[in-house]
Amino acid sequence: MVLVLNQRYVPSCPKTSSDMSDLLFLGLDGGGTKCRARLRDGRGILLGEGTGGPSNIRLDPDLAWTSMREACREALAQAGLAESDLARVHAGMGAAGAGQTSAVERFLSRPHPFASFSIDTDAHTAWLGAFGGGDGAILIVGTGSCGYGGAAGQCHYVGGWGYEISDEGSGAAIGREALRRAIWAHDGRAPSTPLSQAILAEFGNEPEATVDWVGKARSSDYARFAPLVLQHAERRDPLGIDLVSWAAHGLAGIAARLLDLGAPALCLFGGLGEPLRPWLPPPIQKAIVPPAADALDGAIILGRAASERRP
Amino acid sequence: MVLVLNQRYVPSCPKTSSDMSDLLFLGLDGGGTKCRARLRDGRGILLGEGTGGPSNIRLDPDLAWTSMREACREALAQAGLAESDLARVHAGMGAAGAGQTSAVERFLSRPHPFASFSIDTDAHTAWLGAFGGGDGAILIVGTGSCGYGGAAGQCHYVGGWGYEISDEGSGAAIGREALRRAIWAHDGRAPSTPLSQAILAEFGNEPEATVDWVGKARSSDYARFAPLVLQHAERRDPLGIDLVSWAAHGLAGIAARLLDLGAPALCLFGGLGEPLRPWLPPPIQKAIVPPAADALDGAIILGRAASERRP
Repeated sequence: MVLVLNQRYVPSCPKTSSDMSDLLFLGLDGGGTKCRARLRDGRGILLGEGTGGPSNIRLDPDLAWTSMREACREALAQAGLAESDLARVHAGMGAAGAGQTSAVERFLSRPHPFASFSIDTDAHTAWLGAFGGGDGAILIVGTGSCGYGGAAGQCHYVGGWGYEISDEGSGAAIGREALRRAIWAHDGRAPSTPLSQAILAEFGNEPEATVDWVGKARSSDYARFAPLVLQHAERRDPLGIDLVSWAAHGLAGIAARLLDLGAPALCLFGGLGEPLRPWLPPPIQKAIVPPAADALDGAIILGRAASERRP
Repeated sequence: MVLVLNQRYVPSCPKTSSDMSDLLFLGLDGGGTKCRARLRDGRGILLGEGTGGPSNIRLDPDLAWTSMREACREALAQAGLAESDLARVHAGMGAAGAGQTSAVERFLSRPHPFASFSIDTDAHTAWLGAFGGGDGAILIVGTGSCGYGGAAGQCHYVGGWGYEISDEGSGAAIGREALRRAIWAHDGRAPSTPLSQAILAEFGNEPEATVDWVGKARSSDYARFAPLVLQHAERRDPLGIDLVSWAAHGLAGIAARLLDLGAPALCLFGGLGEPLRPWLPPPIQKAIVPPAADALDGAIILGRAASERRP
């Protein structure tokens, strides 16, 4: 599902300016916590943006479609357009979970409302936005985490295989480990700290309540504890510092591998990218550059390229 | 749900020997991988034993009942009894997941076939078997892990809060971490070893297949990788040694806390207790003693005590 590198995004048959403004391109970014949408016309003019709920296509494809519709409606409304206009929109989506062929197939078994619809991983669209198809790597740190990129037309995934057995340094990883360590404090296996107390208090200081909650928890539920952990780490809570250092160590392992694969630079994405950046080892921090564009514009590049490949 | 300590298990109103042989006591041990049953008469004579499938009452109560019936049928058949005889059986069960009031309530909402039925955690029945209600602690290491025990009538749980955020050193923890580390090797984040190769080969060297599998995996599925990890550790595979040392470190944290709570000795239970014992730190190993009786006889003590408390 990786796009051909250096693909020309300008139409091969030039159109007039009014043709270009008739074209509608939608970029979608589907993450475990929220879905975002951005609408541009053929000249690249921003028409509208919107936000919806969780949209991990692997964990819950129905919820992902609902969240996408929600984000689309808001973007269309800002542009003064109706939902029926989706029929002339070329959409591209970067989605957490789109690395799984099985998940993409399940997701695409539902009819879509667009003129064309392309989907790839959130990592691929982030990289398209950041480097426009050139050498470089991205590291997404949100509910999940994923590294992607490389050099000379060879892109690789590093990490990002789901929160159960991968996604080191992600919000879900931080939150789940925070619960584990709070339980240690409850059991008397580790010292109590303000952070462990704050976490246990969320469950009425009842490990039983924690276990009930865990039985229904999704990755985004675990990730909701990440800001609390970061706040306590900033206040020098020993458990908070331990957890954030551990998360940064996991991210550094992903980043180091991407740089070793030949990527000359690294862009951070996701809600936890910037907060965790100062915790990364200095040699990793030195490689970080700002992205040329964001993942939503990367998704627009994806949708636009697919529409131009159509006969 | 903790039994009164030092409870007298002999009937307060003495019965004749034939009365005692008419009584039927069943002990059940419900674990994440299998369910075991043992039938004794009132004099303690062994009448039969049986085995059934997975029976974690928290993760799948319906499956747990099916597995229990299976184990009971086998034990009854060995005793030359029919399923209808369950109506005169006093049953006690130790079950993984019975620490959750909500899980026990869901489980007990189904009708049971016994004259009386008592349930407590697998940790409590293991401890009843090992120390007969006296000072001491047990550490179960199977699909999950759990520590329990204490001194002077005060028993505490340490660990055992489910494989998602607890159960350090368990088969599920070992298996899940083995998958994580195999993915590291696949990504090039860690050296490849015979163990990482063996794990990746189980999924056709496709991380996508691993993620699909993980999406449906239960704790017992993860635990099935533990023997492979142990075998490779014995052959000095660096990843195997790392994983088993990490598991032993987690178990040592639970054991140390139990001993610090005043338990004078520790008994190991569960299929991974003995294999992991040589990996534990020497000061923990020194505290380990053989149990007076096993968890099934502990479950019989539980069922018998409950039947004697009835009017």
